[in-house]
Amino acid sequence: MATDVARSPERSAPHDIAPDPVALQAILDGRYAEVRDLVRRNLVEHAGLLDEVDDLDRDTYRDRVLEVVQKVAATGQTGFGFPTEHGGGGDIGASVAAFETLAYGDLSVLVKVGVQFGLFGGAVLQLGTRRHHEAYLRRIIDGSLLGSFAMTESGHGSNVQALETTATFDLATDEFVLRTPHDAARKDYIGNAARHAEVAVVFAQLHIAGDSQGVHAFVVPIRVRDEDDRLVPAPGVRIEDCGHKMGLQGVDNGRIWFDDVRIPRENLLDRFATVSEAGVYDSEIESPGRRFFTTIGTLVQGRVSVGGAAINASKVAMTLAVRYAERRRQFEASGEQEELLLDYGLHQRRLLPLLAATYALHAAQEEVAGDLHAVFSGERTDDRSRRALESAAAGLKAYGTWHATRTIQECREACGGAGYLSASRFAALKADTDVFTTFEGDNHVLLQLVAKGLLTDYASDFQDADQLGMVRLVGGLALDEVVKRTRAHQLLERVRGLLPSGDEDEDETGVLDTSYQLAMLRYREEQVIASAARRLKSGVDDGIEPGEVFSRVQAHVIAAARAHVERTVLEAFVAKVESLPEGDERRVMGMLLDLHALSLIEADRAWFLEHGRMSSARAKQVRREVDHLCRRLRPHARVLVDAFAVPEEVLRAPDLLGPVVVAGEQGAAEVPGHHPLGETAEMVAEKVPDDA
Amino acid sequence: MATDVARSPERSAPHDIAPDPVALQAILDGRYAEVRDLVRRNLVEHAGLLDEVDDLDRDTYRDRVLEVVQKVAATGQTGFGFPTEHGGGGDIGASVAAFETLAYGDLSVLVKVGVQFGLFGGAVLQLGTRRHHEAYLRRIIDGSLLGSFAMTESGHGSNVQALETTATFDLATDEFVLRTPHDAARKDYIGNAARHAEVAVVFAQLHIAGDSQGVHAFVVPIRVRDEDDRLVPAPGVRIEDCGHKMGLQGVDNGRIWFDDVRIPRENLLDRFATVSEAGVYDSEIESPGRRFFTTIGTLVQGRVSVGGAAINASKVAMTLAVRYAERRRQFEASGEQEELLLDYGLHQRRLLPLLAATYALHAAQEEVAGDLHAVFSGERTDDRSRRALESAAAGLKAYGTWHATRTIQECREACGGAGYLSASRFAALKADTDVFTTFEGDNHVLLQLVAKGLLTDYASDFQDADQLGMVRLVGGLALDEVVKRTRAHQLLERVRGLLPSGDEDEDETGVLDTSYQLAMLRYREEQVIASAARRLKSGVDDGIEPGEVFSRVQAHVIAAARAHVERTVLEAFVAKVESLPEGDERRVMGMLLDLHALSLIEADRAWFLEHGRMSSARAKQVRREVDHLCRRLRPHARVLVDAFAVPEEVLRAPDLLGPVVVAGEQGAAEVPGHHPLGETAEMVAEKVPDDA
Repeated sequence: MATDVARSPERSAPHDIAPDPVALQAILDGRYAEVRDLVRRNLVEHAGLLDEVDDLDRDTYRDRVLEVVQKVAATGQTGFGFPTEHGGGGDIGASVAAFETLAYGDLSVLVKVGVQFGLFGGAVLQLGTRRHHEAYLRRIIDGSLLGSFAMTESGHGSNVQALETTATFDLATDEFVLRTPHDAARKDYIGNAARHAEVAVVFAQLHIAGDSQGVHAFVVPIRVRDEDDRLVPAPGVRIEDCGHKMGLQGVDNGRIWFDDVRIPRENLLDRFATVSEAGVYDSEIESPGRRFFTTIGTLVQGRVSVGGAAINASKVAMTLAVRYAERRRQFEASGEQEELLLDYGLHQRRLLPLLAATYALHAAQEEVAGDLHAVFSGERTDDRSRRALESAAAGLKAYGTWHATRTIQECREACGGAGYLSASRFAALKADTDVFTTFEGDNHVLLQLVAKGLLTDYASDFQDADQLGMVRLVGGLALDEVVKRTRAHQLLERVRGLLPSGDEDEDETGVLDTSYQLAMLRYREEQVIASAARRLKSGVDDGIEPGEVFSRVQAHVIAAARAHVERTVLEAFVAKVESLPEGDERRVMGMLLDLHALSLIEADRAWFLEHGRMSSARAKQVRREVDHLCRRLRPHARVLVDAFAVPEEVLRAPDLLGPVVVAGEQGAAEVPGHHPLGETAEMVAEKVPDDA
Repeated sequence: MATDVARSPERSAPHDIAPDPVALQAILDGRYAEVRDLVRRNLVEHAGLLDEVDDLDRDTYRDRVLEVVQKVAATGQTGFGFPTEHGGGGDIGASVAAFETLAYGDLSVLVKVGVQFGLFGGAVLQLGTRRHHEAYLRRIIDGSLLGSFAMTESGHGSNVQALETTATFDLATDEFVLRTPHDAARKDYIGNAARHAEVAVVFAQLHIAGDSQGVHAFVVPIRVRDEDDRLVPAPGVRIEDCGHKMGLQGVDNGRIWFDDVRIPRENLLDRFATVSEAGVYDSEIESPGRRFFTTIGTLVQGRVSVGGAAINASKVAMTLAVRYAERRRQFEASGEQEELLLDYGLHQRRLLPLLAATYALHAAQEEVAGDLHAVFSGERTDDRSRRALESAAAGLKAYGTWHATRTIQECREACGGAGYLSASRFAALKADTDVFTTFEGDNHVLLQLVAKGLLTDYASDFQDADQLGMVRLVGGLALDEVVKRTRAHQLLERVRGLLPSGDEDEDETGVLDTSYQLAMLRYREEQVIASAARRLKSGVDDGIEPGEVFSRVQAHVIAAARAHVERTVLEAFVAKVESLPEGDERRVMGMLLDLHALSLIEADRAWFLEHGRMSSARAKQVRREVDHLCRRLRPHARVLVDAFAVPEEVLRAPDLLGPVVVAGEQGAAEVPGHHPLGETAEMVAEKVPDDA
């Protein structure tokens, strides 16, 4: 419980603080400051790409992106995640830090890096064995062997287990035969496929001697060099360009069909399952379901990376919007000069809670990236850590990418017409990040995975209880627990709902007390999970067909996952702030923490009110405090975005950031502007009677 | 009070209804069905443009758009709003209907039409007099004289009254001299300016003999033909291309500087003010403020048009998402075949309330367009009607354009990766409509205008009361009214807040009762306005500087405007449903009405709970009913989008709508897919004890 943050005196004396942007940046950059600086230098070097792209044709843009990718690969920036023995950096945490930071620049470069080094290279590393590592990794890392990650099919995206591409073992030739059985089974949206990839890691149903062994991954050459040394599709491989997309034009997404393409048996990535020369299938993981999830568990790094990239893309948008709002004036409220946008209460309300959430997500991302590093470096090897990581990665990817969509949109609107011009980065940010909510796992499907884990844990508690014997439970200390989860608890809840001030702590704890904020989010999470479980159970008990039960409870299940993710993000932010030494940086981050926590509570205050966890008076207090925190943070907004350290060269928004045109800079308008509610306050004050 | 809709028996027996899409379309198309059909035919004829644009360079795209604009102009589609004597159609309502429907197609064409015929042509018509009409209108209507509407400057967008371009009368030459005093005063984002316009209506501060008369509009030739008959900038005019934008690449937005450009005195659009040869300024409207607002009041048609276009762009997105969700299968819940997306409860929750809101907005738009027709055709000439129209247009423009942003985004995400390809229309819809929330009045500024009207009315009530004498008021029947607006009311409110079931009507009225729904929205609106007024007043009374008062109350003021707009939209939808004859179309629209109303109440239930207007039990009932309505409407979703009658040719989404690829169509997957929560329901049911 973070009471030391909450009650420390500096939080009640927020004025006159002067947080240092350099110190704040050091806090955000963390242990990988050098890695991030390397990426920033590379971004500056290739910042020209951002200006070129609007006028490049698609193929030229794609080739330029490839050129940049290969150049930054040469600096070591993209190889941190690979073992040193194959030319990598041997530091998974560094690899995530580098990828995240790359999101400050052109996002086609980011996604191409993700495809080549994360998905394709990662699959060879994680699913392959020494033979594959030696054959491919060095050339993957230096960018000379380009590859695709061919999982998704037109007919099956989220439901990977139902992929329809087949790989049939041919005993006679010791080969696998890859086949696309029909058009819906073509590989689709595959990055690197339309133009650059020579090989692909292809996910297909493995068939041996008539038996299906489920989805496995294979290295498949998809292009060969013709007599003129040009890359052309390999025999039996058909490739089609996905064509123009909403964004990410610099990535060559394509479709692939396989017409009995033969590959040697060795091309099975066989870390988790092998096929012998005699056609005998063998795996240490007996359960096909578990084998499948172990195989696609390697996707977790991609999810952590995309989540981090989305959070950093939000930082670019926040930087633009805050800096614009600190320069741009609009309408006089009083006096000669027009007001700065950021001095308007509504503008603060639009931007500052998003800024606080961006900081919170940064902290959560740092924690998840640390967990990824620990699990994939073998520091933590237990199943529980791995499952926890998978859930955290799924949740944060969904939360972070939706945050990016929302933040970029709000920031664009907050920059008006200037934000609509491509010169401002918003056009690219918006178009390029749009698909983040879909790829590397559709957000809703990911939240269902999170919820599944929560519900399984919830049910397991009871299962364990059964095994231990209910008598012991009921007769022992666990009674409270049982009561809480039975009808008695429902009754209690109903009673609490009747009380105007359902939270008996309200008198004792202030809304700025971190322990209060965390307690609220924890309570909600527990309740929503329990309630989702009850609904599922009662539906099944009532004999309703399970699909229908699920359909009806689905929104509730997603709400449980959201409540869980919001709680874990807040906890990560609390832990981050607590880890800081005393000082103005900690003070300002403490204010951001309060703003983030109270914004979350405010946004879902209906739930707290409905469940008797909050009184109306407290709900109004929360809203007032959010307003108040916005005003308190307003003087620090610029420093808080400067700490993101997005290089000036990639901000690329002359009309937003100067030097050209900001109203009022060249002297006040000759004819005073008309404040949209200029005289209204005074008029209302004059005309409404005193006791109204 | 719409109790006949609410309590009519068909609403409690919603099953087995079979609304007819053709009849529904007739209801939506309304009195302008023929006009809409003309536009649909033109859209189909030029649908090829939608496929071309991804590969056209900017200039070619712009010229193609101009070509299409001129071709549809020749069919009369774009001239409905002009008087018949100058070659127009003489029907303003028809003009709005045509424009809205055009939003089904390429939105660069839409915006170019809006610039040429709405803004430029509209300004000449509304601000000019016979001399200007005779000189320009016929060539404007046939698209041979292309023009710009040069109002916005880089430094001043929303604050039009503070524009800095000057037009100084030169008595000696009988001319106005236009001048851009500095870079921030350049005209910016001006449609048609970068490539096609020959003339512009320029808004500038009129200076005569040292006196400033405020913003006036002038016809200014900005391009002339050179010896090779090419259009080049006129002497003293500098034009720059705004370059690449987020969307709407087919519109040539530009910047314009004036360096002492001379135009004849006759070029002042002089409907509301004249300048004589002797340099005497004269206007029938004495107040400069009122003159200014009368001048820019002509913008109202543009706002009504943009709001309608946004609503219709939402219809395209809804059509794609619903039709995809009716074909696409993903994950087995039970049985052999995967489930249709639209059979998932969450997917219904994501799409169907937006569909209901789209219908509600359509009804509201029809009403506002009718009001526009009445006011601008001279059927209603009173000031009150005009002010009401301006407020309604501002509110609906903001609401409709935000609805479009949100709906297009949700529909894109609901279509997964296929929705990200440009082949699906989402890319263009999203990029092109993004600026709708900004142009024709920034949405937040528009909501402030709405709020200003509400607060002025609120204060005026008291002002009138003062004039009549408070004695009479207090001694008479108006006592209730006074009490309601004074501290006693605040006390009462506080008491209600303490009651768990503050709404004493809850036992008597059902949530499906339209009178209940309307009462809730009306109550909230009144309360929020009164509360905003109180806050403004107490801030001023406390001696806080008015700018600071406004800043602090601003979010509240915007909330008042939102509450007002939501109430008026709901009322329009109620009126629309009530106007229909009995039948299945009325029944299904009644369900949409319930879903829309309850979704609004659900979304803001925190407010109702906080203000003691709703009990927790009622709040939960509302949520259950929204779920239930989604399930009831699900079988009718396809018919409801078919009724929008978006031509197949412009839907252009082969991967979403077929015939290519939908999972499961070519037979069930050989390996069963894994439902993300497949066994969870059963597992939970099994393991959670019965009384949990």
